Amino acid sequence: MTQPWTWHGGGMESAKRRFGDSGRPWLDLSTGINPHPWPGVHALAIDWHRLPEPEVLAGLEAAAASTFGLHARHVCAVPGTEIGLRLVGRLLGGPARYLAPGYRTHGEMIEGTEPLGFAALAQSDGTLILANPTNPDGRAIDPALLLTLLETRADGAWLVVDEAFADARAEQSLASHIDDDRRLVIFRSFGKFFGLAGVRLGFVLGPAGMIAALRALLGAWPLSSAAIAIGTAAYRDHDWISTAQARLLDDAEALDAMLASLGHRAVGSCPLFRLIEVERAMSLFEQLARHSILTRPFTDQPHWLRIGLPPDAPSLARLRLALADG
Amino acid sequence: MTQPWTWHGGGMESAKRRFGDSGRPWLDLSTGINPHPWPGVHALAIDWHRLPEPEVLAGLEAAAASTFGLHARHVCAVPGTEIGLRLVGRLLGGPARYLAPGYRTHGEMIEGTEPLGFAALAQSDGTLILANPTNPDGRAIDPALLLTLLETRADGAWLVVDEAFADARAEQSLASHIDDDRRLVIFRSFGKFFGLAGVRLGFVLGPAGMIAALRALLGAWPLSSAAIAIGTAAYRDHDWISTAQARLLDDAEALDAMLASLGHRAVGSCPLFRLIEVERAMSLFEQLARHSILTRPFTDQPHWLRIGLPPDAPSLARLRLALADG
Repeated sequence: MTQPWTWHGGGMESAKRRFGDSGRPWLDLSTGINPHPWPGVHALAIDWHRLPEPEVLAGLEAAAASTFGLHARHVCAVPGTEIGLRLVGRLLGGPARYLAPGYRTHGEMIEGTEPLGFAALAQSDGTLILANPTNPDGRAIDPALLLTLLETRADGAWLVVDEAFADARAEQSLASHIDDDRRLVIFRSFGKFFGLAGVRLGFVLGPAGMIAALRALLGAWPLSSAAIAIGTAAYRDHDWISTAQARLLDDAEALDAMLASLGHRAVGSCPLFRLIEVERAMSLFEQLARHSILTRPFTDQPHWLRIGLPPDAPSLARLRLALADG
Repeated sequence: MTQPWTWHGGGMESAKRRFGDSGRPWLDLSTGINPHPWPGVHALAIDWHRLPEPEVLAGLEAAAASTFGLHARHVCAVPGTEIGLRLVGRLLGGPARYLAPGYRTHGEMIEGTEPLGFAALAQSDGTLILANPTNPDGRAIDPALLLTLLETRADGAWLVVDEAFADARAEQSLASHIDDDRRLVIFRSFGKFFGLAGVRLGFVLGPAGMIAALRALLGAWPLSSAAIAIGTAAYRDHDWISTAQARLLDDAEALDAMLASLGHRAVGSCPLFRLIEVERAMSLFEQLARHSILTRPFTDQPHWLRIGLPPDAPSLARLRLALADG
């Protein structure tokens, strides 16, 4: 019954059917998407008619690479990180382990991938897939630990770091360590930090050889004109990026304070979402849903509920009331 | 030097650098994209913020399936046929042959694929990849021949039909023959017929098992909100579709008549482009480019020049003058 919400975030249409109408618009806190999108979309002229030229795709990759802090030859744009993970999984091949609890697709991108707990990370030496910050618990893994993990991979094994939620704290990124001689692959997501998940845009960062293999798999026109135009302009908007980073940290602090006032301690340090531990997370999920607030429960972690950033003070107050109405 | 234009159509930026400015805007006839796009794009409200819900993706596939004439469970939307060809190629595996001359990606989608001439089609019994109508020569292959080819495949071999240019003449499509028990896969393209190639939207039609495998490879959100909204509305616009089909046939007839008046006989019957045979196609390509008209030459067929439909009577007249200025 709760399958649509424990599978991934989203599933708003299913929630409306299941929980009906409280008389207020639904508040979607089920994902980690910035509630304050980059505002420049509607000012862009998008050429839907023609195939995007290779030069404009290269311009997007250059703008993104400059933001990530590495050379564009190590960067390949993909139509969403989700498809990027699955295609790169095919290129890398198994066997592999993924950090669990983790993002569902990390366990699916390479066939036969087995879960591995955080405490056991240092004992593995094969291909390893993890997110930093972790998802859903938002833990920031020390870059020094990741570099040690990279150095201790066996011959032919890769370290795969999904930095889907890293943009709010760019200093955590391993992007500057990408090198043709290192078996390190990084994923970046456009839609979460920029609040534009409907664009479907992500990036794979890796050695030039693997980037070339990925380009061959994607073909000549992997991205829509819109994804290229929006992504290029947004990554070039350095003022908005730094303002958004600061605002997300402030908003996350306000959410933490509200949760603390109700006796909840937020886990993790990713400002795009917070995780709380409660005795019966599914009951709390349903309680919030009856107030038309969608959050994110997990099948395998019945004590966890992930809560995205409320977009404004009234939404934060509404969440507080719904949480307290137990 | 001519690499950007013989590789694929497009390459307008390269053309501008190479051939400079004739004082007139460039006329791009290098692709087979309808010069009269479906006009509803700007009236659509596109939700760039949220991840597309599974229900809206299913709605797009249902609208497209209805237009193609088969059940939606046989239809999987992909972010462009180009990536669809390459992913399905991975799923099918080799060995395979492709009809040559043909579309470049048909020779690349399965490793080690060998070319096969039209006359030798009936002698093959392995996996076969071809387009109908063919590209670049626009030949309409009789559906009865294709069904015979399908029936004579060896165990485990597939017939792959790329119907990228089939929409203008829907009666040529094999879509209604898709079945769970047949090793038939069809590709359809949104951007060419609807004149919206920048959207990046295509469809794979096949047995339910292979559609499920493709969905697993694509993940949860393969398409942008824009591709879903635009595609759904366009495929539901049956009046526009039938008007466009008639108009393309009229426009192609006018192009044929103009070419004939200069002694050229257009090859093929695909209304989205025409192919002419000349002694030195590259010279003619350069002659037209000096008039800021971009067409499509081919490395392996030095006698062929493909010409897309001019958008209006003045463009047709301009093409006539440029062709005559030898």
